[in-house]
Amino acid sequence: MNDSEHPPSSHRPSVWERLADAAVDHFRVFRVRRTRYRHARDRHEGEFVIIEANDWVNVLALTDDGRMLLVRQFRFGIHDFTLEIPGGVIETGEDPVAAGVRELREETGYAGRAARLLAQVRPNPAIQANVCHIVLVEGCVHVGETQFDPNEEIEVSLLPIDEVVAKAERGEIKHSLVVDALFYLRAWREGRMK
Amino acid sequence: MNDSEHPPSSHRPSVWERLADAAVDHFRVFRVRRTRYRHARDRHEGEFVIIEANDWVNVLALTDDGRMLLVRQFRFGIHDFTLEIPGGVIETGEDPVAAGVRELREETGYAGRAARLLAQVRPNPAIQANVCHIVLVEGCVHVGETQFDPNEEIEVSLLPIDEVVAKAERGEIKHSLVVDALFYLRAWREGRMK
Repeated sequence: MNDSEHPPSSHRPSVWERLADAAVDHFRVFRVRRTRYRHARDRHEGEFVIIEANDWVNVLALTDDGRMLLVRQFRFGIHDFTLEIPGGVIETGEDPVAAGVRELREETGYAGRAARLLAQVRPNPAIQANVCHIVLVEGCVHVGETQFDPNEEIEVSLLPIDEVVAKAERGEIKHSLVVDALFYLRAWREGRMK
Repeated sequence: MNDSEHPPSSHRPSVWERLADAAVDHFRVFRVRRTRYRHARDRHEGEFVIIEANDWVNVLALTDDGRMLLVRQFRFGIHDFTLEIPGGVIETGEDPVAAGVRELREETGYAGRAARLLAQVRPNPAIQANVCHIVLVEGCVHVGETQFDPNEEIEVSLLPIDEVVAKAERGEIKHSLVVDALFYLRAWREGRMK
C-alpha cells in the first residue's frame, strides 16, 4: 500500500472552459442545457448536458420535546410514497431560510421559534447546477392549516428524532437529501455545527 | 402543540395511476420522460416529467489503517472541482457491488479484500427514478494503474475517515450522495448496519 496522501495513480484534473451554451428544453421544475466546453490544458472539446433548477430547501423542523416533522407523499419519480422532511423549491430571489419557513408552514401548518441555515449540499455536481439548503427550525408548534400547492397531497407526522435516524438506517427513509439533513442534524446535536 | 403522531393538518395522500408515457429526449447520461397520471380517488389528471438514468454506485473504500479513498475532479454541473468518493454509473444488468469494485479499480487503481452493499438511497424521488447504491470495500490496497473513461480526469487521495467526516461537516465535501455514504458509514462503524 502506498502511504502518501496522493497515491501514484493520482492525476491532477484540469478546469474546462465554457464555450457555447444552448437550452435544450424547459420542463416544469427544471431546464436541460447542453454546453460545449474546452479543456484548459489540451484544448480538447466536449459537449455536456446540465440540469438547471432553482435551489431547493429541506427543513429539519424540531419540537421542544425532541420530535421532528415528517411528510409522506406520492413521488412521481419513483412512483411510490416517500417519508421525507418538509421542503421544496426556493422561489427566484427568495432567501433560503425564509423559503424553508414558508414550506414548513404550507406543508405542515407548523412554525418555529428560530430558523437558521445549517448546511448546503449539491444534489448532483456531475449533472446539476443547483444547491439544496438545509434549514433547522427549532421550537415548532402547530399554528394553522396547511396550504398545499396544486397536486400536493401530504400526510404530516411527528416522530422522535432518534426514531427518524433509525428509519434512515433501516432504509425506511431513502431520500438522499433527507439523509443528508440527518447527517448534519447529528453533527449539530453533538456540537460540531454552529 | 398537538401531541398525536399525526397532527390535525395531516392529509392522507393518494396513489396516482400512470396513463400515457412519452420519452422527451435522450441525453448522454439520462433521459427525460413526460408522463400523464390520474389521481386514484378524484380522477383528476396531471402531466409530470421524470429524469431516468441507470442506477449509480458510490464506494466507501477503506484501508486497514483507517483511511478512505477520495477523488477530486472537475464537475460540469457546478463548473467547479469536487471532492467525492469513487463511483459512477452502473452498466445495464451489472451487479451494484461489482460495479462499485470496477469503478474503484478504474478511478483509483485500488482494490479491496471484501465488498458489500451497505445502503441504497433515492437521489431525488420527486423527479428521478433511479437508485444510488452505497458499497463498502474494506482492506483496500493499490494494485495497479487507473483506467479513466474518456474525459475523466481524477486526482486520488487517501485521508483518515474522521478527517473526511470533518470535511463534510465544514462544507468542504458538499456532494449529497457522498454525505449520504458518510451517514451510513458512521452507522456501520457504530455497529448499527449489518
